[in-house]
Amino acid sequence: MKTYTSIVAALLALGAGAAAAQPADPLPSWNDGASKKAIVAFVERTTTKGSPVFVPPAERIATFDNDGTLWAEQPVYVQLFFALDRVRALAPRHPEWKEKEPFASLLKGDVKGALAGGEPTIAQIVMATHAGMTTDEFDAVVRDWAGKAKHPKTGKLFTEMVYQPMLELLAYLRANGFKTFIVSGGGIDFVRPFTERVYGIPPEQVVGSSIKTKLEMADGKPVLMRLPELNFVDDKAGKPVGIHQHIGRRPIAAFGNSDGDLQMLQWTTAGSGARFALIVRHTDAEREWAYDRASSIGRLDKALDEALAKGWTVVDMKKDWKTVFPGAPPDVTEPKD
Amino acid sequence: MKTYTSIVAALLALGAGAAAAQPADPLPSWNDGASKKAIVAFVERTTTKGSPVFVPPAERIATFDNDGTLWAEQPVYVQLFFALDRVRALAPRHPEWKEKEPFASLLKGDVKGALAGGEPTIAQIVMATHAGMTTDEFDAVVRDWAGKAKHPKTGKLFTEMVYQPMLELLAYLRANGFKTFIVSGGGIDFVRPFTERVYGIPPEQVVGSSIKTKLEMADGKPVLMRLPELNFVDDKAGKPVGIHQHIGRRPIAAFGNSDGDLQMLQWTTAGSGARFALIVRHTDAEREWAYDRASSIGRLDKALDEALAKGWTVVDMKKDWKTVFPGAPPDVTEPKD
Repeated sequence: MKTYTSIVAALLALGAGAAAAQPADPLPSWNDGASKKAIVAFVERTTTKGSPVFVPPAERIATFDNDGTLWAEQPVYVQLFFALDRVRALAPRHPEWKEKEPFASLLKGDVKGALAGGEPTIAQIVMATHAGMTTDEFDAVVRDWAGKAKHPKTGKLFTEMVYQPMLELLAYLRANGFKTFIVSGGGIDFVRPFTERVYGIPPEQVVGSSIKTKLEMADGKPVLMRLPELNFVDDKAGKPVGIHQHIGRRPIAAFGNSDGDLQMLQWTTAGSGARFALIVRHTDAEREWAYDRASSIGRLDKALDEALAKGWTVVDMKKDWKTVFPGAPPDVTEPKD
Repeated sequence: MKTYTSIVAALLALGAGAAAAQPADPLPSWNDGASKKAIVAFVERTTTKGSPVFVPPAERIATFDNDGTLWAEQPVYVQLFFALDRVRALAPRHPEWKEKEPFASLLKGDVKGALAGGEPTIAQIVMATHAGMTTDEFDAVVRDWAGKAKHPKTGKLFTEMVYQPMLELLAYLRANGFKTFIVSGGGIDFVRPFTERVYGIPPEQVVGSSIKTKLEMADGKPVLMRLPELNFVDDKAGKPVGIHQHIGRRPIAAFGNSDGDLQMLQWTTAGSGARFALIVRHTDAEREWAYDRASSIGRLDKALDEALAKGWTVVDMKKDWKTVFPGAPPDVTEPKD
């Protein structure tokens, strides 16, 4: 007759056997190559007990740029598509826009002409469409839009134009005790309504640019009004500032795709111990877009030089990724197994 | 011979028995009474599956004021003791302070005279002691100070003057899937170095007042310099703004002790579904301090009226708490069991 102890031992052995079985590849959309190898090596070195560069779970902070790093940013940032849709939606309430630039051109469909004024014009459009309502109202507007707005070229929802390999990377890091944050140059309140659903990142783990808000009473209830006044620009040298303000400690891994992320990558890698910096390089004109040093959106120039000089991981989208978007068929040039 | 199945069933039954045993009281330092009952009822209503006001774990956000809510704030805020110690430590580098107010009075030991100028004077002292160094340097200074600075009246470390019942409450909420945040009127970078050790709250879950920082290069490495310029005041109407900026969603429970917390409590309770607001009332001159409507530190006046009118939970420190500080003997007027 088997003893209680021996049965328990047998059960434990069964469990150990299951755990020892080869785990499924956590990054199935990544081709085997230097990028995937570098990611896995970093995670294993920092999370294996006894490793000389072991990092306690509380300090496993990983920060991700959004536009061009987690989702597509061409031909213009998704938030600009949102702003243009809002101009059309709000036009009936603003009859004066028919005569006033840049709104008049936008409403006639001349986006290129409207945006010829550059940054100040874009700021004007953003303030006109992102302020003048409560935070709850803006949240509802973004949720509604994100649930239906489609990319003009692909016909996909914008929220479907996220990168499958990066979704796997986020999940892989979290499965290894990392806390994942978005650190976006885009508006913090524009991305928060969908980061949890799309990336598994809750709103409190999103850092971004913002306009000011002010507490007011409306019908006896407190509301936060969104003011047409810049609060913080979370881009370039602003990214380490935003990270410090929101997170309060230095990431050990950071992920970007453009010169706007350079300072975040420098700040991250300047800490002691094991550090990881990765740049997504857009090299795939067929499945996504190909652009770098000369692009006005997501320019990758100085950060590419520094990545190459310092040996940061540079992902070649065309070579490193089996799949770009969720649900897309794997690239047939890659062997399937 | 027992079958494998029957052994497994027996093991499962053992486990079920253990789980069904009466759990230990999660709030042992709270006397049984209306406050404790209200806390437990709220947690059970919002976390029991099938409850009409069940809240998914991701939305279980609880925000806590720090000064006077989680630790003592008398006779003046802990951060002011820190600033005064820094004036003394920095004096050798500032010979001009011997002639310049408020520093001259401070260095002669005349704190009351030095602070007679009120808020602008305090701001001047804070800027002189909190800016002009990197974020890493400031972090090290605070860590060092928090590890040794003692309260002039009790002789305890300031970090030991935290409220044992509130530590239990934080742990109880977290054990029930709540994410706990500090939302302090004090400096975010002053409290972050010890919130994880003292409260179990990581730096990324701290909201507070701040001065501006700027990315600079020092010896080829990026640093964040602390500038003598106000960035954000996380007090009164600023608390909902800070909560929105950092957390991006409305808390379902908020805990404060003074009029500085009123807007946070209003903002929290104005949301739909079950909401919880609690005020710690300082009624215990013997074990802590007794103060409310007339106090210049931690004034509780308007918020007390509103709490009473709206039925928020008002903790009577003297009656509701068996113990105030960790390690202190329980109040002998209360029966021990």
